[in-house]
Amino acid sequence: MPRSLPPLRLALAQVNVRVGDVEGNVAKLRDWIDRGRDEGAEVVVAPELAISGYPPEDLLLKEHFLGACAEGLQALARETEGVVALVGFPERADDVYNALAVIADGAVQAVYRKCDLPNYSVFDEQRYFQRGEAGGLVELGGARLGLTICEDIWTPGPPASAEALAGAQLIVNASASPYHRGKGRQRERMVVQRARDNLCAFAFCNLVGGQDELVFDGYSVVVDHEGTVLARGPQYAEGLVHAAVDLHAAGTARLRDARLRPSVRSQLQHVDHLAVLERREPDPAADPAAGADVHEPLEDLADVYGALVLGTRDYVDKNGFERVCLGLSGGIDSSLVLTVAADALGPERVTAVTMPSRYSSEGTRTDAELLAANLGVELLEIAIEPAFEAFEGMLAQTFDGRERDATEENLQARIRGNLLMAMSNKFGWLVLTTGNKSETSVGYSTLYGDTAGGFAVIKDVAKTLVYELIAFRNARDADHPVPESIITRPPSAELRADQRDDDSLPDYDTLDRILELAIEHDASPEQLLAAGCPATELERILRLVDVNEYKRRQQPPGVRISERAFGRDRRMPITNGFRG
Amino acid sequence: MPRSLPPLRLALAQVNVRVGDVEGNVAKLRDWIDRGRDEGAEVVVAPELAISGYPPEDLLLKEHFLGACAEGLQALARETEGVVALVGFPERADDVYNALAVIADGAVQAVYRKCDLPNYSVFDEQRYFQRGEAGGLVELGGARLGLTICEDIWTPGPPASAEALAGAQLIVNASASPYHRGKGRQRERMVVQRARDNLCAFAFCNLVGGQDELVFDGYSVVVDHEGTVLARGPQYAEGLVHAAVDLHAAGTARLRDARLRPSVRSQLQHVDHLAVLERREPDPAADPAAGADVHEPLEDLADVYGALVLGTRDYVDKNGFERVCLGLSGGIDSSLVLTVAADALGPERVTAVTMPSRYSSEGTRTDAELLAANLGVELLEIAIEPAFEAFEGMLAQTFDGRERDATEENLQARIRGNLLMAMSNKFGWLVLTTGNKSETSVGYSTLYGDTAGGFAVIKDVAKTLVYELIAFRNARDADHPVPESIITRPPSAELRADQRDDDSLPDYDTLDRILELAIEHDASPEQLLAAGCPATELERILRLVDVNEYKRRQQPPGVRISERAFGRDRRMPITNGFRG
Repeated sequence: MPRSLPPLRLALAQVNVRVGDVEGNVAKLRDWIDRGRDEGAEVVVAPELAISGYPPEDLLLKEHFLGACAEGLQALARETEGVVALVGFPERADDVYNALAVIADGAVQAVYRKCDLPNYSVFDEQRYFQRGEAGGLVELGGARLGLTICEDIWTPGPPASAEALAGAQLIVNASASPYHRGKGRQRERMVVQRARDNLCAFAFCNLVGGQDELVFDGYSVVVDHEGTVLARGPQYAEGLVHAAVDLHAAGTARLRDARLRPSVRSQLQHVDHLAVLERREPDPAADPAAGADVHEPLEDLADVYGALVLGTRDYVDKNGFERVCLGLSGGIDSSLVLTVAADALGPERVTAVTMPSRYSSEGTRTDAELLAANLGVELLEIAIEPAFEAFEGMLAQTFDGRERDATEENLQARIRGNLLMAMSNKFGWLVLTTGNKSETSVGYSTLYGDTAGGFAVIKDVAKTLVYELIAFRNARDADHPVPESIITRPPSAELRADQRDDDSLPDYDTLDRILELAIEHDASPEQLLAAGCPATELERILRLVDVNEYKRRQQPPGVRISERAFGRDRRMPITNGFRG
Repeated sequence: MPRSLPPLRLALAQVNVRVGDVEGNVAKLRDWIDRGRDEGAEVVVAPELAISGYPPEDLLLKEHFLGACAEGLQALARETEGVVALVGFPERADDVYNALAVIADGAVQAVYRKCDLPNYSVFDEQRYFQRGEAGGLVELGGARLGLTICEDIWTPGPPASAEALAGAQLIVNASASPYHRGKGRQRERMVVQRARDNLCAFAFCNLVGGQDELVFDGYSVVVDHEGTVLARGPQYAEGLVHAAVDLHAAGTARLRDARLRPSVRSQLQHVDHLAVLERREPDPAADPAAGADVHEPLEDLADVYGALVLGTRDYVDKNGFERVCLGLSGGIDSSLVLTVAADALGPERVTAVTMPSRYSSEGTRTDAELLAANLGVELLEIAIEPAFEAFEGMLAQTFDGRERDATEENLQARIRGNLLMAMSNKFGWLVLTTGNKSETSVGYSTLYGDTAGGFAVIKDVAKTLVYELIAFRNARDADHPVPESIITRPPSAELRADQRDDDSLPDYDTLDRILELAIEHDASPEQLLAAGCPATELERILRLVDVNEYKRRQQPPGVRISERAFGRDRRMPITNGFRG
C-alpha cells in the first residue's frame, strides 16, 4: 500500500427500484451513479439485485427475464464513466447467482457472487440461486474493497473476515434488507460489530421502498474500522449517502491488534482477486468529507408509521393506481388506515366511504365525518339498509326457522365490501382494507366483507399498537386529526345492537400478549401459561388462530412490520390437525 | 450372505394421514403395521413424514410440535412387535432432519436422514431441514436394506448407489410425492431405471391423500433388480402393498455385471451401518408371494379426475365439513365441480344453488335442474334480482352519469358470492368455487364473487381439459349425468345480455396453448410467436396473466394437477414491472 492514500470517497445509492422493471431501474441507477460521480464519489454502491428489484420471486425462473437483466446491466455499464459502480443483479452463468457487478470504464470488470443465501422467514433464495464460493476483492489504486451481499455479513466469519484478512480496508455490503420493528438499529449494531471484529470499515447500502408485503427501510450506513458512524442514510426515502473512508486507519490499527496479524492467516478462506482498477485523481479543492450526512434514526413509532406510509404509497404507485378508497367506520382501525393513506398519497388521492347500517351509532358517524374533514379527504356516504333488506328477503325461505346469528353480521360486512369493490371497478380505485393483526389472527373479520380489497395496510399491526400509532400521529402535528372520542370509545364492529369486541374476545392487552408469544415466538400452551396468560381464554384463542388460516390465506397483502407476519413469512397449513 | 435366504416379505403401508394430527396418525400407523405383520410381512414401510403428515410447513418451527412427533414415534415403537417398521418423522436432534425411523422390538433402533432436500416447485425443505450426509444400511438376517427418502432417488447416484455398492439387495424409499398430470408413470419409470442401474430391488412407498393444494396419489411400487414390477398399489386410495423380494437375485446378477463389482468401489460414498436386526422365522406354510397385488395404472383422464375427487374429499373431510354447496350456473365448469363433489362426498352431502339473474337463459336453468336431478343432489334456487336492484339504487348517485360496464357484472357475481357465503355461515357448509385455470390465468372472474369460497376444485384445470373431463365422466357410467346441451352451448358468464366468452377472449384451444407455454414452460413472447401463437392476442393475454396475480393471491386453494399450479408452486410478485 502506498504510504499516503487519499481517503476513498464513497456514495451509497439508496434507491427505490421496482421489481421487474429492468429498463426503469437501469435508468434510475444511471442517474444516481452519475449524480454520485458528479458530487465527487469515486465509488457508487447500489443495493442488492438493484437491476431486477427485490425479491423478483419466480421471475428468476424465466430465462428471458434473466436475459433482460443481463442486457440492462450491460447498457448501464456502457454509459458508466469516471466512476466505479457496484450494482446488484441476477447473474445467469452456469447457474443463477445473486451477484454484484463491478462496473468501470464502460464495462463490467468483475462479478462477486453472494455466498450465504437466506432461506428462512420471508426469504427463499435457495429456490433460485447457487451460492458463491469465495470472497471478492477489488483493488482501486491502493484501496482494497471487499465485496459482500446482504446475508453474507449476518453471520460473523467469511466472506467478510476472509476479505479483511486479505487486506480489505473497506467491506462493501449491497443489501435488500426488509424492515421489521427494531430491525434498523439491530442492523446498524451488527455492522458496527463486524467493523470492530474485522478492524475494517464497512459500507452498508440498503434498498428503500415497498414491494408487496415487504418494506425496505433504507437506513444505509458507513462506519469506520472502530465502528464510528461516518454517514447514515434516511429511512423510507431515497438518498445518496456520501462518506470519505480513511484507507490507512484500518491497516494502522491492525499493526496493533494480534487478532488480524499473519499468525491467523492460515485460517484464510479463499478470496478471489476480482479486479485491479485505477483511482480517479482527486479534485484538490474537494473536501472528501463534504456531503457526508448522518441522519438521525427515527424513534420506534415514527419508524413503524414510516414503514406503513411507504409500504402503502409504493403498493399504490407501483401498481399504477391514482386513488384509493376505504370504508371509514369511525372506529380506530379505519381511522389509522385513513391517516396513513392521506400521509402516503396526499388527501386528494383518498376517498373515505361511510356505510352506516341500522346498528351504526351517531357517535361513530360524526367521528368519521370529523376525521375526514380534518384530513381533507373526500367522504361519501351510502347506507346499506336497502341491500340488507333485499338479502334478508331473498334468504328468508332458505333460512326459515333459524335464529339470527353471525350470518346476518357477515352479510352487512359483505354488502360494504361489494360497495367498495363496485367503486373500485367503476373508478379504478384501489380498496384499502382496515383489519389489524389481532383481528386477523383470531379471524375476527368477515371474509369478502371487511377483508375485501387490494392492500391491507395494518394487517401486521396489533390492536394495542394501533392505539399507540394513533397517539403518535395525533401528537406529531399540530392538527391532531383523530377525534379523541375515536380513541376512547370501546371497540365495536357495530354489526348487531350494543355489540362490543370484548363480548367475544379478551381485552386487547391480554389478547395481543398471547398472540405475540404464540405467533412471533411459537410458544407452546405450557409456555404461555408459564408466562401468565390466562388459562380460561388460552385454548380458545389458540384454536381460533389455527382455524382461521383459511381466511388469512385469502386476504390481500399488507405491510410487514413484525418479525413474523402472516403471508409469505408464517407459512402454516390450512388443513392442520395440530392443537397447540 | 448365507447360501439360502428366504425372500423378504415386505408390505408398503400406503396410508392417508392428516397434517398435524400426530395422535391420529400414530394410531393409524399402528393399525397398518399390525395388519402388515398379521398378513405375513417382515418389514412394513410407511411414507415420508408419516407421523407429522406432509408438508407440515411452519409447524416444523414449533419446538412443541417436534416434541409431539418424537413422543408419537416412541409410542408407536413401544407397541411394535414381531415386525420391522420404517416410519417417516421429523427428527429433532442437533438440528431438524427429515428422517426415517427403523423400529423393531419395541424401540427405535436407528434413524436414516434424508440427504437431498428439494427446494423448488411446491417444496421448501431447505427452509426446515438439515441434510443427512450418508446412506443408511439396515441388516436384517442376511438381508441388506438401503434406506432413502423421496428426493434421494430423484437424481441418480448416492445415497442409493452407495447403498447398493455397500451390498443392499433392496432400496427402500419412503415418499410423499405429490401428483401432477403424468407423474405416476414418470415416477415408476424412474424407479425401474434406478433398479436396473443399481442392480437392486426398489420398494417405493408413497403417501396418499389431499393436503390443501397437493394430492398424493399413492401408486406405490415394488420392482426387482431388473425393474420388473412385483407389486403396485392403488391410486387415490389407501392400500397395504405386499411383495416378496428375492434376496439372491441382485447379488447373482452383480457377479455378471462389471458396473457394480469391486473395481468401482473406490467411488463408494459414505454409508452408515445403522442396525443389525434378526429376521423372523418364516411360516413354512406361507407363500411369500401371496397378497402381492399389481394394480393397473389409471388412464390419463381417470387419473386427473381421481386427483380432483380425492383432493376435494380430503379437504372437506380433514377440515371437518359435513356438506358443501356451490353455485350451479348450467355452464360446463360448475357442472364438472358438481360431479366431482358428488363423486367425492356422495350426492347427499352436496347442495347446488342456482341464482338466476335477468340475464340467465332458460336453457342454463333447465340444464342445471336436470344435472342436479341426475346426480341426486339437492338444488336450491334464489334469484338475485332484489339485491341487484338494491345495489343499483344505492350506487345510483355515486355512479351518476357513468356508463354501465363490468362493475354491474361483478356486482351480480358478488351477490351470488354473498348468498353462498351466507349459507356457509348459517349452515356450516363449505363453498366450492368453480373457476377453471384458463379463467384464473387471465382474471376472467370476479374477486369475492365467483371466486368466493373455501376450495377451488378445478382452479388448475384448463378449460379444454374441463371438456375432456366432462366427456370422460359422462362416458364412465351408464347414467351420463351431464346433459349434452351443457357441453355444446358456447361458454358465457351470463352477466349481460348475449354475452359470450369469445367476445373478450380467444377461443379456448388457442388460449390454453398460450397459457400452457407461458405458465408451465415460462416461454418468452418470442418463443410463443415461434410456436405459432397468434401475435394479435399474445401481448394482451400475457399482460392479463401478470396483472391478475393480485386476484389469484386472494383465491382459495384447489387441487394441483399440473406441473405449475398457481399458489405455492408458481410464486410471482404482484407488484411487477416485467412485461413478457
